[in-house]
Amino acid sequence: MLTRDNLSRNVLRAEYAVRGPIVQRAQELEAQGRKIIYCNIGNPQALKQKPLTYIRQVLSLLEYPELLDRPDALKLYPKDLVQRARDILDRHPHGTGAYSQSTGIPFIREAIADFIARRDGISASKDQIILTDGASKGADAVIKALLKGPIDGFMIPIPQYPLYSATLSLYGGQQIGYYLDEQSSWQLNDQILTESIEGARAAGIRPVGIVVINPGNPTGAVLSHENIRMIVRFAKLHHLSIIADEVYQENVYEKNARFYSFAAVMHEMDETGVSLFTLHSVSKGYLGECGHRGGYLEIRNVPSGVLEQFVKLQSINLCANVVGQFTTYLMVSPPQPGDESYPKFVAERDGILASLKRKAEILGEGIDRIDGMTLEMPQGAMYGFVRFELPPEKGVEVSEMTPADRRRYEAKRDSDYCLALLEETGICVVPGSGFGQQPGTFHFRTTFLPPQEEIELLVARLKTFHEKYVRELEEV
Amino acid sequence: MLTRDNLSRNVLRAEYAVRGPIVQRAQELEAQGRKIIYCNIGNPQALKQKPLTYIRQVLSLLEYPELLDRPDALKLYPKDLVQRARDILDRHPHGTGAYSQSTGIPFIREAIADFIARRDGISASKDQIILTDGASKGADAVIKALLKGPIDGFMIPIPQYPLYSATLSLYGGQQIGYYLDEQSSWQLNDQILTESIEGARAAGIRPVGIVVINPGNPTGAVLSHENIRMIVRFAKLHHLSIIADEVYQENVYEKNARFYSFAAVMHEMDETGVSLFTLHSVSKGYLGECGHRGGYLEIRNVPSGVLEQFVKLQSINLCANVVGQFTTYLMVSPPQPGDESYPKFVAERDGILASLKRKAEILGEGIDRIDGMTLEMPQGAMYGFVRFELPPEKGVEVSEMTPADRRRYEAKRDSDYCLALLEETGICVVPGSGFGQQPGTFHFRTTFLPPQEEIELLVARLKTFHEKYVRELEEV
Repeated sequence: MLTRDNLSRNVLRAEYAVRGPIVQRAQELEAQGRKIIYCNIGNPQALKQKPLTYIRQVLSLLEYPELLDRPDALKLYPKDLVQRARDILDRHPHGTGAYSQSTGIPFIREAIADFIARRDGISASKDQIILTDGASKGADAVIKALLKGPIDGFMIPIPQYPLYSATLSLYGGQQIGYYLDEQSSWQLNDQILTESIEGARAAGIRPVGIVVINPGNPTGAVLSHENIRMIVRFAKLHHLSIIADEVYQENVYEKNARFYSFAAVMHEMDETGVSLFTLHSVSKGYLGECGHRGGYLEIRNVPSGVLEQFVKLQSINLCANVVGQFTTYLMVSPPQPGDESYPKFVAERDGILASLKRKAEILGEGIDRIDGMTLEMPQGAMYGFVRFELPPEKGVEVSEMTPADRRRYEAKRDSDYCLALLEETGICVVPGSGFGQQPGTFHFRTTFLPPQEEIELLVARLKTFHEKYVRELEEV
Repeated sequence: MLTRDNLSRNVLRAEYAVRGPIVQRAQELEAQGRKIIYCNIGNPQALKQKPLTYIRQVLSLLEYPELLDRPDALKLYPKDLVQRARDILDRHPHGTGAYSQSTGIPFIREAIADFIARRDGISASKDQIILTDGASKGADAVIKALLKGPIDGFMIPIPQYPLYSATLSLYGGQQIGYYLDEQSSWQLNDQILTESIEGARAAGIRPVGIVVINPGNPTGAVLSHENIRMIVRFAKLHHLSIIADEVYQENVYEKNARFYSFAAVMHEMDETGVSLFTLHSVSKGYLGECGHRGGYLEIRNVPSGVLEQFVKLQSINLCANVVGQFTTYLMVSPPQPGDESYPKFVAERDGILASLKRKAEILGEGIDRIDGMTLEMPQGAMYGFVRFELPPEKGVEVSEMTPADRRRYEAKRDSDYCLALLEETGICVVPGSGFGQQPGTFHFRTTFLPPQEEIELLVARLKTFHEKYVRELEEV
């Protein structure tokens, strides 16, 4: 019989803290009847965020098109959405039940190209767009395709969304971590990037790409225009492809911040020599349609021989799920002024974004006031990456440890903290070590997705818990 | 800028003929206004097969649950399905919009375990079931996890469904082909298996698993009970894990044939020492819900340390799309006698299966009557793997070629044939070389999914085309 020892080393090495042991423990506690506040994952509709009505109305018609022939059914839907469902089925008569073209339904790829063109004022082509089962699958394809051998690696942020480290592990690639600059609201830093890439090269690693998440996960940072220009110049200088994870592009709360896409900034710089892979998704923004697993990968500045390899990769997977494709279509072409469904769409969209902003403020201000905790108000995305202080353990000298031992020791300390937080308060967050952090610092990632009263409760419970936890450590 | 030379060798090596150049050419011709009969892919609803109404009715309610509060809406649905949608949302209040647990929604995994237990009279556990985005993703996970190094390989049938060779290429594994026995209706043959594994070992390859597709793709063969027992004994003897691709389990047309699952046969043999990975899907059978990308992987006879690695792999992907999960649930728990929706379900199911059987017969009998073509009536699945004769080219001595040169030469001949068939008749089939075939033989795979009149047309056109093509070759 198969044993663990027979399995791929790459698979065994991969780690994904967002759904790791602490979440499993939370599910056990919940099964025992405990009320858990799930702040571990950006899963808005599991935390009572309502779906946008127009999306679901159109999907219900697409799943059961016979409704379109029933006058009594049509009274239940806004007229423009009935027409929208009809148009979709005219353009794609196979509906939700057939495999589509490998890269996705052509008119949807066109609509995405229009969306990019409208958003950024640049040109975009449907032939460079591949619909995917969520953004994760796009990242998987790029990393899989660009790793040519065991010394190849991607630069990934620290802290990072662990999809990237996990996928690099799965395909035997090297992780080249670069620290985000906590002092500068988690922007990227040219000097840190340079030190990181030089260190990797000195260690015999060949960097092939850089992953940038903007707005940031887990940091909530929105990168400045100048920061993105710097990254493009850096990628150009070092012959790196860029993976731009832009799934939180609609989630910007800080009034002085604005989302700039890498595609737009590169266009403005007239930069056509840096290959760019951009990810987007229906799971975040104001849709939060995580369960539908829809998204796309846009590829720029690659020769056709590279593009066709991505098309082939997608063809092995047959195609992204078609309901997710339709959801993506509806995301990039929402109701317009004058449509019957428009006022409700606007009210729902603005309600969700305003609520997220308010909760980001409550979280940021509340936590920052706790003694021994630091958090700026998240500028964007759905997370706060909270820094907290722990007193040193008596008799333990971290400075005498090897870096790896120290990392393990500190990872255990922040995991123990998060586990104790869960057991005592029912709050489920992810330890900072799951994303990466500077030695000697401790963090956890929490979403601000639960309803506002739970965020307020979370802040209050955190304060009580943290004070007690630190006191007990000091008393040991 | 990135070039093709920078890409992973594994990715460049991967091939997937089902959506290869001939299909691309067909799409070009179609864009020019030609009518194409797409027989290249098992995509029933693209070929006018209607979805089962009960599935789409429930999905439309799940996408837009507000309908459940509208008495005027409920008149449009059978009562049992309204109740079913309510029950689903009671058990899973997050509906279609949230990520589920990594391995899938618990009650759905339970329903699948019940389905297996009912079908096979054996016990099954929800904890060994992982919901996937179609069966392809399950195969991907198993192959990825079981390949420990570059000398590891899987035994795969020749002819095979090219997902397996493509996935092995992607993860740098070795393909150990074993011929299916065309003389015995494409069953597996003990002696051929033994020669194949011994040859691989002699070549320094370490076989770790065997892929079996039953009912067969592209062969349409339904494996006998004794054949499956033989395979289990073979796997046991050689310490191989089994991947049992059973997605066509409902598609059995030959009256003396019956589907036996590997799980059932192994249970009956009291065999608990062979690790078994079984794949199923909503894309085939009588549902044909390819676009929904639903399916599951069932894992038997592995220690918990192995199982948890598969759970982790799935967690990196977050979860299978939730609509596909619900579709899978509805597949394994269809309407029951007494339900308002039952008569229609039975009529639709039986209509689809009877039509497929009829079309398999028309295809099998019609093609077998063509001079220079051979096809038994497909026993199951959705395909005929048609053998055809081509006259030798003058001045070409295949016996003087290396095996690799001969394979390339013969692959070009059957590709040329299929391309000419497409250009002349609009019929799109896949060359046998895309699946693998014995040297000196030529085949193509065709589905029998198009409407009956198109199958009749296909047989007639094939005859005319083949006679002309052979005549022209002989005249050269």
